[in-house]
Amino acid sequence: MKAAHRFKQALREDRPVAVINADYANASLVEFLSRPELGVDAVMLDAEQGSPDFERIEDMARAARLSGVCVLVRLFSPEAWVIERMLLRGIDGVIVPRLDTAAQARAALDVLRYCHPHNADDKVFVVQIESAAAHAHLDDFLAVDGIDAHFIGPVDLSRSMGHQGDYAVPAVQAAVDDILQRTRAAGRAVGTMVKPGDAEQWIARGARFLYFHVNDWLRIGSRSFPIVRN
Amino acid sequence: MKAAHRFKQALREDRPVAVINADYANASLVEFLSRPELGVDAVMLDAEQGSPDFERIEDMARAARLSGVCVLVRLFSPEAWVIERMLLRGIDGVIVPRLDTAAQARAALDVLRYCHPHNADDKVFVVQIESAAAHAHLDDFLAVDGIDAHFIGPVDLSRSMGHQGDYAVPAVQAAVDDILQRTRAAGRAVGTMVKPGDAEQWIARGARFLYFHVNDWLRIGSRSFPIVRN
Amino acid sequence: MKAAHRFKQALREDRPVAVINADYANASLVEFLSRPELGVDAVMLDAEQGSPDFERIEDMARAARLSGVCVLVRLFSPEAWVIERMLLRGIDGVIVPRLDTAAQARAALDVLRYCHPHNADDKVFVVQIESAAAHAHLDDFLAVDGIDAHFIGPVDLSRSMGHQGDYAVPAVQAAVDDILQRTRAAGRAVGTMVKPGDAEQWIARGARFLYFHVNDWLRIGSRSFPIVRN
Amino acid sequence: MKAAHRFKQALREDRPVAVINADYANASLVEFLSRPELGVDAVMLDAEQGSPDFERIEDMARAARLSGVCVLVRLFSPEAWVIERMLLRGIDGVIVPRLDTAAQARAALDVLRYCHPHNADDKVFVVQIESAAAHAHLDDFLAVDGIDAHFIGPVDLSRSMGHQGDYAVPAVQAAVDDILQRTRAAGRAVGTMVKPGDAEQWIARGARFLYFHVNDWLRIGSRSFPIVRN
Amino acid sequence: MKAAHRFKQALREDRPVAVINADYANASLVEFLSRPELGVDAVMLDAEQGSPDFERIEDMARAARLSGVCVLVRLFSPEAWVIERMLLRGIDGVIVPRLDTAAQARAALDVLRYCHPHNADDKVFVVQIESAAAHAHLDDFLAVDGIDAHFIGPVDLSRSMGHQGDYAVPAVQAAVDDILQRTRAAGRAVGTMVKPGDAEQWIARGARFLYFHVNDWLRIGSRSFPIVRN
Amino acid sequence: MKAAHRFKQALREDRPVAVINADYANASLVEFLSRPELGVDAVMLDAEQGSPDFERIEDMARAARLSGVCVLVRLFSPEAWVIERMLLRGIDGVIVPRLDTAAQARAALDVLRYCHPHNADDKVFVVQIESAAAHAHLDDFLAVDGIDAHFIGPVDLSRSMGHQGDYAVPAVQAAVDDILQRTRAAGRAVGTMVKPGDAEQWIARGARFLYFHVNDWLRIGSRSFPIVRN
Repeated sequence: MKAAHRFKQALREDRPVAVINADYANASLVEFLSRPELGVDAVMLDAEQGSPDFERIEDMARAARLSGVCVLVRLFSPEAWVIERMLLRGIDGVIVPRLDTAAQARAALDVLRYCHPHNADDKVFVVQIESAAAHAHLDDFLAVDGIDAHFIGPVDLSRSMGHQGDYAVPAVQAAVDDILQRTRAAGRAVGTMVKPGDAEQWIARGARFLYFHVNDWLRIGSRSFPIVRN
Repeated sequence: MKAAHRFKQALREDRPVAVINADYANASLVEFLSRPELGVDAVMLDAEQGSPDFERIEDMARAARLSGVCVLVRLFSPEAWVIERMLLRGIDGVIVPRLDTAAQARAALDVLRYCHPHNADDKVFVVQIESAAAHAHLDDFLAVDGIDAHFIGPVDLSRSMGHQGDYAVPAVQAAVDDILQRTRAAGRAVGTMVKPGDAEQWIARGARFLYFHVNDWLRIGSRSFPIVRN
Repeated sequence: MKAAHRFKQALREDRPVAVINADYANASLVEFLSRPELGVDAVMLDAEQGSPDFERIEDMARAARLSGVCVLVRLFSPEAWVIERMLLRGIDGVIVPRLDTAAQARAALDVLRYCHPHNADDKVFVVQIESAAAHAHLDDFLAVDGIDAHFIGPVDLSRSMGHQGDYAVPAVQAAVDDILQRTRAAGRAVGTMVKPGDAEQWIARGARFLYFHVNDWLRIGSRSFPIVRN
Repeated sequence: MKAAHRFKQALREDRPVAVINADYANASLVEFLSRPELGVDAVMLDAEQGSPDFERIEDMARAARLSGVCVLVRLFSPEAWVIERMLLRGIDGVIVPRLDTAAQARAALDVLRYCHPHNADDKVFVVQIESAAAHAHLDDFLAVDGIDAHFIGPVDLSRSMGHQGDYAVPAVQAAVDDILQRTRAAGRAVGTMVKPGDAEQWIARGARFLYFHVNDWLRIGSRSFPIVRN
Repeated sequence: MKAAHRFKQALREDRPVAVINADYANASLVEFLSRPELGVDAVMLDAEQGSPDFERIEDMARAARLSGVCVLVRLFSPEAWVIERMLLRGIDGVIVPRLDTAAQARAALDVLRYCHPHNADDKVFVVQIESAAAHAHLDDFLAVDGIDAHFIGPVDLSRSMGHQGDYAVPAVQAAVDDILQRTRAAGRAVGTMVKPGDAEQWIARGARFLYFHVNDWLRIGSRSFPIVRN
Repeated sequence: MKAAHRFKQALREDRPVAVINADYANASLVEFLSRPELGVDAVMLDAEQGSPDFERIEDMARAARLSGVCVLVRLFSPEAWVIERMLLRGIDGVIVPRLDTAAQARAALDVLRYCHPHNADDKVFVVQIESAAAHAHLDDFLAVDGIDAHFIGPVDLSRSMGHQGDYAVPAVQAAVDDILQRTRAAGRAVGTMVKPGDAEQWIARGARFLYFHVNDWLRIGSRSFPIVRN
């Protein structure tokens, strides 16, 4: 079974998936992250907050495909040309940020289907729910057919709610829980960013699309050696 | 105090230092590894077993210098042109592999002093002790003035002793201990590769130059999340 | 005579021109494709479907200019900043995709003339006719002064007509012929993608801007050796 | 004091600052330009007219930060995703081109504040005044709180006034002087491009944000050797 | 079965194999060349006459491994550090040029076995026979155990015989035939460079390792379109 | 006339030539330096002390060839594989450093002639005279047929004479003058590094191969603006 199919099926079956943001524009790092021993379901190449340009995305995508791990690109913009050009780089799907309305999500999906008229189902399509506006329109998002996961961006959600990126404030956490619960109630997959120590808590709260950062893994790794930071 | 001075002083004062092999040819990764929170004393840019070419080394070196962390390059060869061209990339010192005799180490040191006639002491000079021949000539190495640390390469040492890279075999470990003890007895710094869980043991055995891999940190990081590898 | 002038003059004189999509983001490949022995009139650097970023475009453009072959960039978007930034990379002209109306083509031309107030005629300006909407507005396009060639994109045209990229269906071929004939009737140059074996047929149908892919040349080349695919 | 603070303070105190466009996408060149002996206050990485992509911007920014010189990126577009992605590359601020109205400047400032809710004041925000429309709306621009400098782009201003990029024509120079005087009268910093020999004249006319090109420095340097161009 | 095994087995079984020199330092091109439809058995990454540096080799190797095509690197030098560093880039084997004696070939093989103590047989080891000296020592080469193919370099052979690279001269062709016949007589695989139209002739003369250039395929492809070179 | 021919002829006719070290691994910078207005006769790509790898050298060489300026590479080593691989990058000639004896120079020349059996005279061949040993063997160097210029490296010469890179000491200047005079007396071209203000003095002392650094031009350029370094 193809990587994208496995990934979509796990989400449909309500199983948690681990998505790692490679954080660095380096194909060999992606190859390592894709090793079975690391237990990753998908590698995210971050073209929104990270630096990889189109040529690099292509190299990074190949590195993930070598191991059969699903490779997703977080787009820098939901414009049609961005979706099309990125899908041609050999990736398994896209994570679309900067959406406020379901109409924008539908437009992005239409582009994906336009690019893959025969096999759009082979591609993963994830939307970021990361603004108060998107939250307000959540029911509309949940009515869109073809979204594989709703990925809550806590920092942006906090900013758009006037909390300056601090996502620990109760109002933001309440919004996160509202999105988690309503999305699950609609039978859709949902997830968010996981930090050291809180993966099980997030699963209990309903998250299945679990998003990690290489940087957090490096931090944990460095601390495991008592000599470091002596 | 400069990064190189701090690093050399720690070795002179018999304090352990953490040296991380960045493993990937990426400057932004080096910048992250150099953050104080990670507790790294030196970042090794690996031009012997890794892929970074000269232009990349320059970018990676800048990333370490930004945080005042010592940046060392493991050379691909001890040839004079390699030492000279690498020292011009903005690094704090070199790790010289592929040496069998003290004469080779002295020649490499001469090149470093030729390149830095006024401030060779500002540079870190580390030799790899990684062959049965180098072990046999250890006393000669210890008589060389200007070596900041003797870095035991266990895989190569094992191979050269006929054990095919397996460094757990008693004969190899005995050789490692012999090098550790005799180097310390000569008042010189020594170290080797540290794997998860054995840093304290290596310090007890005499190692002070403690060498880590980013890959090991990533492995530990990934395992700390129960969901990963479900 | 400059490469762009030669290219524009051939189109004005109704002579066929060979335009090769380099397919790969590599300047040395462009240098080879530009050799006279290959008979290419223009090399297309594909920033819409291909991967080359701005720095690479600059290197690829130099490679074509070395041989005096016309070098065109297919833009990823008709936005003004894209046209301006690309024209500064040392190229001879642009191929503008994603247009539905003549007003968009005129806006793109205005940007080109804004960037080259004294020598806009030294630049090649090609539009892609690749949607049902553009086809519907063809007369408006033909009334625009300054378009050097109308390049029919058959795959996109088919998609926009509801045929999922299959351009062999009669309705799509009829549209292609309609565009070919009306454009020629208006005294303008027109062309489309040529596949192995059908160049003469396309010339007979009116195409003069003949568009090739390096990949097709490689396929033909590989098949010419009986041993390959034994 | 941080580089950005020093730079903003100089502008607030009506002192001239030297801003050099590195002209080439090369981090080592930026490192050299940032040396104190060159007297540069800020290095501009030009993503509007130059070629550096996101990965390169990151490397170039590090090179400037090494020396504590302020590093600014001229954006290719004022879109929100461009501002956000660029601010994540380790830079001190942005120069926003392609603005016609103060509302656009305010929108760009809002993005900057959204990205840096706690420390937007640590970032430099410069707008380009480079169109007849922007000139017409100058009072609106001057009413915006948070613009550190108004950078007059003479070539674009000339084009938009119908003078094809020639900025020596009296009407363009009159517009430049009008912008200089009214901006200064409003207590705001203003500047423009400086060419060999006219820096003092520009200071006398009111410019404080003085913009240079590496290419001009190279021209001057080459001419200083009598043998060159023999 | 692994790519290297398939490749070695074909050579052992006296079947012809197609080896394509990618000619350009581009991973996406390698991915295309590795498609089954092109019928290639191995892609050669040319670090002797081509430009790819170590990072690029790594990306190119991944592209070939994606399709299960054997990927070989032609080394720039038979030095031990070169063999070791290249084998760590994820390749299936090496082509060693610049050899005059069997002792040099044996030393290179020893390095390969040192690097892969447990699975040296999983790697492909090819030597170039490209000098009058190597020809003179051919019996010694044929006595070396572990060489998978002897690759005759006709241009260099001609030069070393005093014929300035012209390999059509009878003396050079006689030397080529002598190498072909004696190598086959020793039960070893042998091959050389194939040009358009002469593959069958080379097979008849005994060559099995058939070496092609992308450039030749492009030339043939371009000529197949009557319009090109009108 | 080709760039290399013009360059060699100027040296044969005892006319001064300006050779600029591009200092940065950037092809667009080389393109600018090659403009006629800068008066440069040759651009040196510095693979000995600079960072450009093989792929970059190729791009930089194309940039110089576009303007018909001679492009030379300073090699990192006089090994045969280095000379051969570099000559394949599209350059006009080599500058060979690290030579102590005329035999080494002859070996390098033999490699060049081996690579270009039909047109070795189209290539520029420069040797660095930069050690006390090379000075001692100067007569032997002057007896070699085919050296286009003898380039005195003052820093290395000083180091090898025990003066730690300080080339202002009288003994080093005496050696420089000795090399200048004896080389000229032998009817050969000679030159050295020129610093701001001393070009005419060097011509008077006999230098014709005049070597400049981009960095010096940038320094001069920056100082020409009174505002810089206020």
